[in-house]
Amino acid sequence: MEKSNFFDFNSYLKVRTQKIEKVLETYFPKAKSYEERVISASKYSLFAGGKRFRPLLCLAGCEVVGGNWEKILLFAAGIECLHTYSLIHDDLPCMDDDDLRRGKPSCHKAFDPPTAILAGDGLQALAFELFSHPDLVKNVNKRRLLKAIYLIAKAIGLKGMVGGQMVDLLMEGKKGSPRILKWIHFHKTVCLIEASLLSGALLGGAKFKELKVLSSYGKNLGFAFQIIDDLLDIIGDEKKIGKKTFSDIKKQKLTYPAIFGLEKTQKLAVKYIEKAIKSLKFFGTRAEPLKALANFILNRIPTNSKFVQNEQISF
Amino acid sequence: MEKSNFFDFNSYLKVRTQKIEKVLETYFPKAKSYEERVISASKYSLFAGGKRFRPLLCLAGCEVVGGNWEKILLFAAGIECLHTYSLIHDDLPCMDDDDLRRGKPSCHKAFDPPTAILAGDGLQALAFELFSHPDLVKNVNKRRLLKAIYLIAKAIGLKGMVGGQMVDLLMEGKKGSPRILKWIHFHKTVCLIEASLLSGALLGGAKFKELKVLSSYGKNLGFAFQIIDDLLDIIGDEKKIGKKTFSDIKKQKLTYPAIFGLEKTQKLAVKYIEKAIKSLKFFGTRAEPLKALANFILNRIPTNSKFVQNEQISF
Repeated sequence: MEKSNFFDFNSYLKVRTQKIEKVLETYFPKAKSYEERVISASKYSLFAGGKRFRPLLCLAGCEVVGGNWEKILLFAAGIECLHTYSLIHDDLPCMDDDDLRRGKPSCHKAFDPPTAILAGDGLQALAFELFSHPDLVKNVNKRRLLKAIYLIAKAIGLKGMVGGQMVDLLMEGKKGSPRILKWIHFHKTVCLIEASLLSGALLGGAKFKELKVLSSYGKNLGFAFQIIDDLLDIIGDEKKIGKKTFSDIKKQKLTYPAIFGLEKTQKLAVKYIEKAIKSLKFFGTRAEPLKALANFILNRIPTNSKFVQNEQISF
Repeated sequence: MEKSNFFDFNSYLKVRTQKIEKVLETYFPKAKSYEERVISASKYSLFAGGKRFRPLLCLAGCEVVGGNWEKILLFAAGIECLHTYSLIHDDLPCMDDDDLRRGKPSCHKAFDPPTAILAGDGLQALAFELFSHPDLVKNVNKRRLLKAIYLIAKAIGLKGMVGGQMVDLLMEGKKGSPRILKWIHFHKTVCLIEASLLSGALLGGAKFKELKVLSSYGKNLGFAFQIIDDLLDIIGDEKKIGKKTFSDIKKQKLTYPAIFGLEKTQKLAVKYIEKAIKSLKFFGTRAEPLKALANFILNRIPTNSKFVQNEQISF
């Protein structure tokens, strides 16, 4: 069979996203008893139409090092549970107080704050249940699986995502430096994005050099992701981003646009994506999916934006 | 050396508790940056003088099947992180709204609710970081470690502890049956107590029959533990239990004393402890520590109680 150079990103995304959905649905606990409310609440948020970006990165990390992505779907699904838990808790009234998420009322709005706290707690536990599920354990190297769990647990912990959200809250309404803003973005967002990619790579059998390259790609992609998220709070389309715009500004959040203005922020996002894509050179054509994922992030910036020409960046 | 039949429970407890404290202190993340607040908050609750009952059970489960408890200290320490996270979240104003815990202001009182939520979240993540820590992985069978992680994750999940807390909240002020009360206790408390024991046993190399016996012991012990906890809310000494008495009554919680009255509740506790101890017969003299731990729970009931003579129960 002749190998085509054409990489069909849409069908790539479709196949993997469908499988992730399927696994999430299959392994999501069924309510059979009194606990129905908290299961409904976590299900409500988990199946609210997320892009499944982190699990996709996990699968892509596995593939780029020659692993079989279908064997680690349970791990990827667990990462989405972690991401959803973090959104539910971040949206709480005593945290970021966001009423809208993924275009629907936030979990604490659709249910109530205590239910939302418990739903988040349960989703964090579910993630680790999936990470150690017998159906995954039989597919992968156990030493590597334990390493991947360790990596993710650290990434979302007190010195990772949780620490980032703490400082994000503490800086509300305060004047912050670019240094502290980068610190917040790194911990709140970049850590888990990088770990999603690296855990997939570990499970796929990655060598040290490959992990190093992916770590660089992951960090740059993660920063671009959060910068663009900040940007969309101002120039995004509410329907597309699934939450209200100007919410960061109202809460006087420390963001890139607040410090650098729109133009410089957009240029920074492009710069990070360029750096991410450049680091992929090591993988040659195998990196097509990761390249496409990076451009996919960049293309979240509306096409009518004055500052960014949404062309595909290549290395 | 002559083997003595005398089992010194106090020195048994002291040696193990000190090692658990040491491991918790050693592996607890050090704040080096902006995240200091959330690290302080989780540290505040983790080192507030807990009895370390669940980690002790984990170590005892390992020992009774012939395993080396010193090799699994990190796992036991992780279990205490999970327990502490659950206390922090349960105490929140929108949950059980308890201002006092382990004799000190609850986490959200000493800090604030968002910090307490994040501290709990971070402690849950820390538990899984410890469970998959390289220093533990090198000591144990990896397949068994993954099984133990799976067991614990399920026990604290949507169909375990989190589900139990949800229903406990939902039943506040409502008339409940003994059946639903038992359901709540099982999920809220028994699941993690049983899993603590079984995970230790798994890591210690337990055979199927041993796990079955320990499961029965763990369930009975867990029920006794929660029933006595309910009881201490009424007849306990605030200084000893470290929280305010009559708090369940004020919140119209569904408890054993509320349904059965004090006398029957105390008899039930004794019955569960007796059943727990009887199931240990299988292990012969090796079960001394587990027997002593069960009697230790029973002896939390004040000695001036009208209904229970606090003698040692034996099989």
